[in-house]
Amino acid sequence: MKILAIDSSGMPASVAVCEDGTLLAEYTLNFKRTHSQTLVPMLDEVRNMLELDLESIDAIAAAGGPGSFTGLRIGSAAAKGIGLALDKPLIHVPTLEGLAYHFYGSPCLVVPMIDARNKQVFAGIYTFGQIQPEKDTEPEDPLRVICDQTAIGVAQLCTRLNELAQESGKTVLLLGDGAHVYRDLLEEQLTMPHWYAPAHLSQQKAGSVAVRAADLARQGKLETAAQHRPDYLRVSQAERVRAQRLGQ
Amino acid sequence: MKILAIDSSGMPASVAVCEDGTLLAEYTLNFKRTHSQTLVPMLDEVRNMLELDLESIDAIAAAGGPGSFTGLRIGSAAAKGIGLALDKPLIHVPTLEGLAYHFYGSPCLVVPMIDARNKQVFAGIYTFGQIQPEKDTEPEDPLRVICDQTAIGVAQLCTRLNELAQESGKTVLLLGDGAHVYRDLLEEQLTMPHWYAPAHLSQQKAGSVAVRAADLARQGKLETAAQHRPDYLRVSQAERVRAQRLGQ
Repeated sequence: MKILAIDSSGMPASVAVCEDGTLLAEYTLNFKRTHSQTLVPMLDEVRNMLELDLESIDAIAAAGGPGSFTGLRIGSAAAKGIGLALDKPLIHVPTLEGLAYHFYGSPCLVVPMIDARNKQVFAGIYTFGQIQPEKDTEPEDPLRVICDQTAIGVAQLCTRLNELAQESGKTVLLLGDGAHVYRDLLEEQLTMPHWYAPAHLSQQKAGSVAVRAADLARQGKLETAAQHRPDYLRVSQAERVRAQRLGQ
Repeated sequence: MKILAIDSSGMPASVAVCEDGTLLAEYTLNFKRTHSQTLVPMLDEVRNMLELDLESIDAIAAAGGPGSFTGLRIGSAAAKGIGLALDKPLIHVPTLEGLAYHFYGSPCLVVPMIDARNKQVFAGIYTFGQIQPEKDTEPEDPLRVICDQTAIGVAQLCTRLNELAQESGKTVLLLGDGAHVYRDLLEEQLTMPHWYAPAHLSQQKAGSVAVRAADLARQGKLETAAQHRPDYLRVSQAERVRAQRLGQ
């Protein structure tokens, strides 16, 4: 299965092409430019260098949220556009599951978190089962979702992590921009053993999205381009302000 | 510390820029084109997109071998060229240590292997200590080298891995193109629990090289561009043939 993957949910913009067990290309930029300026040129760069016929793609995977509202809309628009034009299915990859795949196979409590401002993060808590070589049977889902991705206060997340680490004896592994932004708060509140992902495994990369997407596709989780929509997990500031104004 | 990293030791060509705790860019292509056609244009693409002044780089990291003779020479030539032109130090990253960093923090026996033909691989055996958040003191090297990178027969490697897994109780984690090429042989000979890296964590990426390079730089392992030379681990076919002919 050949998958084109896009992640523009956070500061980095990233595109990847993965075919079965091989990552053919991955390109990630984490720079001040807005994704509207970078994402499509990056896609085109990769397409050119791979001499890739987009018709040969089997599915388009997108980091479907949570994340930046604008970033998610740009990524979804690109994925939907290609999907509609070429009549290809989409695979919606929860952003934090893509991030968790940076630590594929880890026995830790893997906790990706994205800054959602005001001491809030979008976070999920994951771990991985013992991974076995695929035999004749289809492998089960390697990812175990302990707490599905949600918007949560950093203090409340720490309380939950302290409890889970205590119960399970597992070490907490923090990644994502939220782990960087709220490091002082995390250090203050986390009482159990924990560590932080290094630079190359901390932020969004489309290669992880592609591999997670392949696992989701095996579970039948495909959708049409028309069906696809980002999962913001909470209403935008504009919507909150409007609701307040209408409520007054 | 801002590091420009290059890995062209195997099939993939990869460039990355990493500054302190942040990966600014990473671009990896795993395609039939030769690195002589791809590496410098990829570097230039990343430089343009990051609006990167090469003068702002503190060091150039190169996957220094083992790997493809031609690939290593292209990567080294590019790194040496930039280092000489701009008077910047180089950091020589053993290729298999860069690959091991894909599984940073893993408690497994991490075994990157590169196909060296004829049921031989270049392989190393690594694990990671318990990673702790950096406090006031400099952190120790997170990578524990159990067997330094070497050229070895697949059967002999399996015997060693079976022993080590037995002694340590650790699971064996296989990555790199050698794990793909010799999968049948590995399945035949490995009697202890083991698994294979997924696509996004299996092959060379310059982001891992950059992060390993930063750890090596903290240990003072910098060199001048003039000093840098790839570490082939064994003589090239041309040299073997010549030695045989001279011996006759």
